Amino acid sequence: MTAQTTADNRPTWAIIGGGNGGQSLAGHLAIIGFAVQLYDIFPETIDAIRKAGGIQVEGAVDGFGNLELATTDIREALTGANIIMVVAPAIAHRDIAEACAPHLVDNQVIFIHPGATGGVLEFKKVLSDCNCKAAITLAEAESLLYACRCPEPGHAVIFGIKNELMVAALPATETARVVELLKSAFPQMFAGANVLETSLSNANAMMHPAPTLLNTSLIESDHDWLYYWDGVTPAIGGFVEGLDQERLAVADAFGIKLPDILEWYRIHYGAVGDTLSEAVKCNQAYAEVKGQKKLHTRYLLEDIPTGLVPMALLGKIAGVEVARMETVIKLGEFLIGKDFTASGRNLENLGLAAMSVEDIQDYIETG
Amino acid sequence: MTAQTTADNRPTWAIIGGGNGGQSLAGHLAIIGFAVQLYDIFPETIDAIRKAGGIQVEGAVDGFGNLELATTDIREALTGANIIMVVAPAIAHRDIAEACAPHLVDNQVIFIHPGATGGVLEFKKVLSDCNCKAAITLAEAESLLYACRCPEPGHAVIFGIKNELMVAALPATETARVVELLKSAFPQMFAGANVLETSLSNANAMMHPAPTLLNTSLIESDHDWLYYWDGVTPAIGGFVEGLDQERLAVADAFGIKLPDILEWYRIHYGAVGDTLSEAVKCNQAYAEVKGQKKLHTRYLLEDIPTGLVPMALLGKIAGVEVARMETVIKLGEFLIGKDFTASGRNLENLGLAAMSVEDIQDYIETG
Repeated sequence: MTAQTTADNRPTWAIIGGGNGGQSLAGHLAIIGFAVQLYDIFPETIDAIRKAGGIQVEGAVDGFGNLELATTDIREALTGANIIMVVAPAIAHRDIAEACAPHLVDNQVIFIHPGATGGVLEFKKVLSDCNCKAAITLAEAESLLYACRCPEPGHAVIFGIKNELMVAALPATETARVVELLKSAFPQMFAGANVLETSLSNANAMMHPAPTLLNTSLIESDHDWLYYWDGVTPAIGGFVEGLDQERLAVADAFGIKLPDILEWYRIHYGAVGDTLSEAVKCNQAYAEVKGQKKLHTRYLLEDIPTGLVPMALLGKIAGVEVARMETVIKLGEFLIGKDFTASGRNLENLGLAAMSVEDIQDYIETG
Repeated sequence: MTAQTTADNRPTWAIIGGGNGGQSLAGHLAIIGFAVQLYDIFPETIDAIRKAGGIQVEGAVDGFGNLELATTDIREALTGANIIMVVAPAIAHRDIAEACAPHLVDNQVIFIHPGATGGVLEFKKVLSDCNCKAAITLAEAESLLYACRCPEPGHAVIFGIKNELMVAALPATETARVVELLKSAFPQMFAGANVLETSLSNANAMMHPAPTLLNTSLIESDHDWLYYWDGVTPAIGGFVEGLDQERLAVADAFGIKLPDILEWYRIHYGAVGDTLSEAVKCNQAYAEVKGQKKLHTRYLLEDIPTGLVPMALLGKIAGVEVARMETVIKLGEFLIGKDFTASGRNLENLGLAAMSVEDIQDYIETG
């Protein structure tokens, strides 16, 4: 079987994941005229959307998006889809890949939005382990296109849409074709050099685990606090800037030049400061981002195993000093009581075991 | 030259360090009838004490202690002293050893009170490097005998005196003799097995660096906080309990059985709890111990290089897992911007370079 576009040549989208991002994207795509098939694991979510017939979207996008299908049956969601957009926590990607594997057909594009670090590499490894023979193309985005929330199933609020979003495919030779396809819906998307560029642009890996761990006492205190404004103190910001230099050094070792985190804040938020601690306080988008009141959140449970772990391991292959990354990983493992390296996106799970820098560069270019 | 006791056979004490502990000890010793020669580096401190003629002590000890001598000349302070008690920040011990080296004479006892981790080993290495040939005996205490403060020079307040305090000499064969000598002033002192037992009983290395680092945001916040009551949250306490297990494993590898930190709180403070976070909150002595409002304090600057660094290195020699210790050391190095391992009590600085567990055991027993 192969996937065919509809009569008017517009792709059919399967959205895998009915959380904040998934519902917002599904609603938006339907509003602008695409056929959308939404999958989620939770029957309550799917039932509510089915009952409404679609998703009411407000904010940066306004309207009601009629969905073709809302289902808890992943096979049904994938059938006839040209683009399969995975919009789910990165720690769920492995299970999603396993669930998709038996139902994929030639010519489908799987777009992981976002992939965190190594999203496409992990997905491909799982499909290969599952003996999936379909000729599909995998791509990932550097982050989520929207800032959004779903107050309840069937109702999405899009606060903001990024001006640009980097996307890359595996192999990199497919990136231009995939970006062209995605741009029919999202003109903000542009081509990165390869999936290492999108993967190493994962700012969450910089901004979430280290500040969270160094705010442990505030998290467990009675104080309310603002995650970025209170949590990124001068010393914590300084540590993250050092961590970020390790990320840039890892990228550099693979031939990729990335902007540092201060430049990233300037580009994405117009937030400027001499230090990271100052820059985040210039970002009004952070004015209401509250600090956690428990330690077990995705800031550690997701951003360590699908962010820092693969970044640090890529650094080790290249002989780059990643002592800050390793320190944060270890500290997170001790405080949470999990072996994030064993369970996370390690080289084996990314399909990169025993590869050199050159092997990996070759693999991401040509697949 | 050799040091002789006075006519009535009571030893003369040199106190090296006129801080809170040094003045309290000097005053107390003088009150109970010992000849005391006090040295400090700060002329203002020494001038004030000279002018007063001694030290007014109140609290658990009450009275005025007339000093024989208060001086900024270390040679003068050491001359004629039988016991040289070093009461100074552990990071100053190396400089003190260098300053003492040319003036030491046979039969003097140098008692480092407390030695932190490796105090005696470091002191001996410095004396050896300085080519000091005097036949002296080195000993150390596991912690400071008093809880005390000096509101101003010449005025000491002793809040509490420990019921017992472990002391050990290098070589261990000298411990009984040294403890007998010290007991003439401090009956609370008892013999530990060897200087590794006193050194690995350093509770500050457990209770200071890790909680401080994990309170970074609170330290840099506008909030006032209590170091133990607010700072040792459940997750932080749990981490320290894990750190403490590493300390016990290091001790065990050198044939030393130590009580864990919970038992230590029960013994020293009668503070009991199922977890460390609960136990510290049962310790009324901590009710007014405020949290720092800056990161650069002795809780990191002293307790990492003279506590965790030597503990972790001893662990490495013995093949003991000390990943938590190493994580705290690294995190402290990154946040403070210092290489504590290079500058601190590493194996070279302790005179233990290239030694095996057996070599070290032999060395501490027989010198």
